[in-house]
Amino acid sequence: MVEIIVAPHAGFCFGVKRAVKLAEESSRFSHNGGKVYTLGPIIHNPQEVSRLQELGINPSLNGDIEEESVVIIRSHGIPPERERELKRVAKEVIDATCPYVKAVHEAVCRLTKEGYFVVLIGEKNHPEVVGTLGYLEECNGRGIVIENMEDLKEAFRYEKVGVVAQTTQNEKFFKEVVGELALWVKELKVINTICNATSERQEDVYELAPKVDVMVIIGGKNSGNTRRLYTISKSLNPNSYHIETAQELEKDWFQGAKRIGITAGASTPDWIINEVREAIQELCES
Amino acid sequence: MVEIIVAPHAGFCFGVKRAVKLAEESSRFSHNGGKVYTLGPIIHNPQEVSRLQELGINPSLNGDIEEESVVIIRSHGIPPERERELKRVAKEVIDATCPYVKAVHEAVCRLTKEGYFVVLIGEKNHPEVVGTLGYLEECNGRGIVIENMEDLKEAFRYEKVGVVAQTTQNEKFFKEVVGELALWVKELKVINTICNATSERQEDVYELAPKVDVMVIIGGKNSGNTRRLYTISKSLNPNSYHIETAQELEKDWFQGAKRIGITAGASTPDWIINEVREAIQELCES
Repeated sequence: MVEIIVAPHAGFCFGVKRAVKLAEESSRFSHNGGKVYTLGPIIHNPQEVSRLQELGINPSLNGDIEEESVVIIRSHGIPPERERELKRVAKEVIDATCPYVKAVHEAVCRLTKEGYFVVLIGEKNHPEVVGTLGYLEECNGRGIVIENMEDLKEAFRYEKVGVVAQTTQNEKFFKEVVGELALWVKELKVINTICNATSERQEDVYELAPKVDVMVIIGGKNSGNTRRLYTISKSLNPNSYHIETAQELEKDWFQGAKRIGITAGASTPDWIINEVREAIQELCES
Repeated sequence: MVEIIVAPHAGFCFGVKRAVKLAEESSRFSHNGGKVYTLGPIIHNPQEVSRLQELGINPSLNGDIEEESVVIIRSHGIPPERERELKRVAKEVIDATCPYVKAVHEAVCRLTKEGYFVVLIGEKNHPEVVGTLGYLEECNGRGIVIENMEDLKEAFRYEKVGVVAQTTQNEKFFKEVVGELALWVKELKVINTICNATSERQEDVYELAPKVDVMVIIGGKNSGNTRRLYTISKSLNPNSYHIETAQELEKDWFQGAKRIGITAGASTPDWIINEVREAIQELCES
């Protein structure tokens, strides 16, 4: 009898899970022929997007939506001005913005109110950052987006600087920026808005990989966060495998294995993780 | 004709300069046989302490003072409770606490008022830190002193952490502590209370040493900050010399020199710098 252990933080993070659930619930609006859109694909996993399309949830790729339709705002959020626009056109707007992202929107306005120039550590063109900048503008705040240490210089001339980060920001870079800023500005306030889902998933692998005979990592071959999980796992356990679906599993991998570990990248839905778990179970019992 | 350039930030920092000036002015109280004390030697330079003793200013080494005497609080400040004690006993208390240190006292109370647990980066037994902790207690604040990264762990369990530093704190360590804390706590506020006198003095040497034929650094052979100035200078200009007084100068050092640079550590009074400058002038002209 083999033991199969799924890492506690495998797959979807809290915000993505919530957004997909809200999308599923919105499928009721499509029952009488109504249109239900997500603004862009709700996650970067084609299987999951197809599954939702079968439930009547269609990604609007160019952002256009029909009048009287239902629109779902994705987990990374949008600028408030855009939300008002949607509300003018749509019958209903369902806000699936991740609560951790909403916390960033709230934070930039709080910092502005307290007199801080805002430094947002993140990728300039990322939808989450675009949304947050919209909130900063809305509350008449001033600030910049920092992608590298060179960008940071502009902030040195302000006396009071407030820092927030894109929720998926790299912790090492965040730390460097904050340390540097603390030396240059008189008063610094930092609200750590990094979501710990990514680091938790990595910690799971550090914990699990050395304890099992075989480690299976599920997720897109082109997914950066999944590849990092695989690299960590391989360094701790040579019997580590990176797959996208259950079809790639090979019986040989599990020969003589007693304990098998599974984890998955952030864009892998639970049902794919479950399929893999069941397929491994079958391979080991056959 | 030689050109002698004294580095702009040579010798006393602003706070020490101010404290010595206040001590000199207090000598008037000793004219009618009154006692004037400084709580401990006002600076760590025996020549300067002797000079002030001739003016009637005596260091109280154990902290005891006679009733009806005049007491001078040194630049690093004291706890408010101790100040009240002194005021009960002394005829007059002259507060020569450095304004930059007063800013730290003010900062810990402001952070407390705003709900922050205070992290004071500094040396646990340093008089400046003891004074600041007195102010923290006075305003019912909570906090810890951080000498190393190990000490920092206690702060991780607080949601709101406010950081200040001993005014002479090392910038590199300050940066590390702030960066680390930003990752662990939800909300971090940093008030950079490091005085830039030390780094300014070092920057002077980086600027001056490569431009002169000979570089003379004045200050105690056991003074850490002076030795660091000498090390920097020597690395940029092999003709660098570290002396304590003008008597140590040698004529040979200046043979053929056109430009000579001078700087001094933080505990070196201006009159010693002037003596050295004049002695060099004479050696070059003779």
